[in-house]
Amino acid sequence: MPDARRYHRLPTPFRMKRGGTLEHAVLAYETWGKLSAHGDNAVLVLPGLSPGAHAASSDIDPGAGWWEAIIGPGKAIDTGRWYVVCINSLGSCKGSTGPASIDPASGRPYGIRFPELTLEDAANANQCLLHALGIGHLACLVGCSMGGMTALAQMLLHPGCTRAHISISTAPQAQPFAIAIRSLQREAIRLDPNWNNGDYDEARYPEAGMRIARKLGVITYRSALEWSGRFSRIRLDSDTRDAGPFAAEFAVESYLEAHARRFVRTYDPNSYLYLSRASDWFDVAEYGGGSVAAGLRRIRIDDALVIGVDTDILFPVEQQETIAEGLRAAGARVRFTALDSPQGHDAFLVDTERFGSEIGSFLDTLPATGSIADMR
Amino acid sequence: MPDARRYHRLPTPFRMKRGGTLEHAVLAYETWGKLSAHGDNAVLVLPGLSPGAHAASSDIDPGAGWWEAIIGPGKAIDTGRWYVVCINSLGSCKGSTGPASIDPASGRPYGIRFPELTLEDAANANQCLLHALGIGHLACLVGCSMGGMTALAQMLLHPGCTRAHISISTAPQAQPFAIAIRSLQREAIRLDPNWNNGDYDEARYPEAGMRIARKLGVITYRSALEWSGRFSRIRLDSDTRDAGPFAAEFAVESYLEAHARRFVRTYDPNSYLYLSRASDWFDVAEYGGGSVAAGLRRIRIDDALVIGVDTDILFPVEQQETIAEGLRAAGARVRFTALDSPQGHDAFLVDTERFGSEIGSFLDTLPATGSIADMR
Repeated sequence: MPDARRYHRLPTPFRMKRGGTLEHAVLAYETWGKLSAHGDNAVLVLPGLSPGAHAASSDIDPGAGWWEAIIGPGKAIDTGRWYVVCINSLGSCKGSTGPASIDPASGRPYGIRFPELTLEDAANANQCLLHALGIGHLACLVGCSMGGMTALAQMLLHPGCTRAHISISTAPQAQPFAIAIRSLQREAIRLDPNWNNGDYDEARYPEAGMRIARKLGVITYRSALEWSGRFSRIRLDSDTRDAGPFAAEFAVESYLEAHARRFVRTYDPNSYLYLSRASDWFDVAEYGGGSVAAGLRRIRIDDALVIGVDTDILFPVEQQETIAEGLRAAGARVRFTALDSPQGHDAFLVDTERFGSEIGSFLDTLPATGSIADMR
Repeated sequence: MPDARRYHRLPTPFRMKRGGTLEHAVLAYETWGKLSAHGDNAVLVLPGLSPGAHAASSDIDPGAGWWEAIIGPGKAIDTGRWYVVCINSLGSCKGSTGPASIDPASGRPYGIRFPELTLEDAANANQCLLHALGIGHLACLVGCSMGGMTALAQMLLHPGCTRAHISISTAPQAQPFAIAIRSLQREAIRLDPNWNNGDYDEARYPEAGMRIARKLGVITYRSALEWSGRFSRIRLDSDTRDAGPFAAEFAVESYLEAHARRFVRTYDPNSYLYLSRASDWFDVAEYGGGSVAAGLRRIRIDDALVIGVDTDILFPVEQQETIAEGLRAAGARVRFTALDSPQGHDAFLVDTERFGSEIGSFLDTLPATGSIADMR
């Protein structure tokens, strides 16, 4: 399989926010386009929980990326103009160091001996990579879903790291509904006897727990509205149905099943647990003396585009509005867009025509070269 | 424990809609108030999936019922005026015959050898009980959630069974979002090795699966809005927290935990599976040549009150509106109320002040004696 991923060695030891260190950790990333001589045309894209760094195809890896419709020559994030970097989050399992990686101290996978992970750790790691790539200031930092929270952390911890920001379907802090959903996903994995306190292998993999976690994810990533139109009460053909008691018989059930099958065994359950909990923990209010608004006001950027989707039940559009207002109060020029895409939280992956149009027209307004104020 | 339940023997064999029969099946029910000489003051209350027939306290059983605030002397459903009956659904496990009951043919619990169950079967069983109680026509048939679907079935299969109807947070057919949630709840139970194809006992009970099913239920019975106000990001005291990796640390997690603990081992997992699937199957459109509207138009009643809650994600308020419009098109006088209670689907159990006020003022408008047109 062709693979365009590159690996950046993080400084050793790499100190984690809540204590503990990582030795010889790496970040996996991909790049598209060319960094300008001034290093001022870089766009960093931070994905959601599940995708890796392969956001778009390239000469090396022609396979479609998870944001293929958005990133490429002449596309919304135009790789003819921008040097685009996409990072697989620290703690994930798509090349970056995470719980499935071998702990150099023991020669075995970390499992739940991996140190407690926060999105701030991921943000700090991202910043190390940018430094190594010679990118003093990003032209734009783009964060989607969990990646949007990491982006907020990165801007709070590293003022001046970017001139502009695109925030997509994310949150300044997890609300209890999102915490409840993620807590239940984690519980499903942990209750699977094969999880075995984080020590499993291919032969004994917590498949039942991961199936439930993924299906619950898919349910909350989409919207009831979309599904009513798409599936209604369509039944499966009797010859494609599984036999057995309580087997799936509605189209929506086989849709969930297909999603679960594609995900299970391609994602590390411990990574899921760590990143899920990191998402619950993240809270901009920590940077504002207990106030989200005050935390956001500490972010120093020139321009921002904030996009939310009004059918998103996991990261509701009100939270995007909070981010937009906070960045505006911080002095940025902010464009806020609430899209009525029916696809809920997943809209940025599906309704790429509208997202692309918003992203492309925002990036078009950015100056050709960076202009971070000296003060910052 | 005092127990006010009574038991009605259904005719043997009791034929089920999808085939199969039950022998010597019973329905558990409770009553409050006195049936009038004309038998025309009866109100039948059909609960949701989990509660039993104990809707309110009585001299025999002074324990609070699941609708204690609504049913009683001088309350919204005034037991001084009405003879109130509450039935535990056929297939449930609170006294009525269901999968946990002993199959007389084998001397063992039915388990998944229980015949396929539909809400129409429950409706037919209810009707047998009414007949035995000497109730030719109900003054009002009240259905909440799953019980609301059973009520629709009862009115479709037994025209003239009631003069008036109160429909609460239910659906004329399950939409794919509700099917997806219920399918996942069933999967969590079925994937638990202790479920063992429906043959479990106290020692080997599918607790993990039931915990997940219940928590997912609670998440969808409430609303993100309520939880944001109620729990925000409140943390548990460190001394009340469980130890162990990924243990609960937010208040919303311990709330879910408390709900799961109260439910698990008090509800039969197979009953849950059967009633959950029956809810997915139920479809008023079957009675209208594929059209929900045409199905509803076949219901013959004089008056209806339809209540929905606009934060209900499982039985969205649009579905209540569909029911109201259908009953109106059928010729009934219909009062439709969309409440903005923050408690979502559970509001009828929690926001009893507002529900009580709607229900009470509707019942006050009903004539003292029944007046079912002879045509029906």
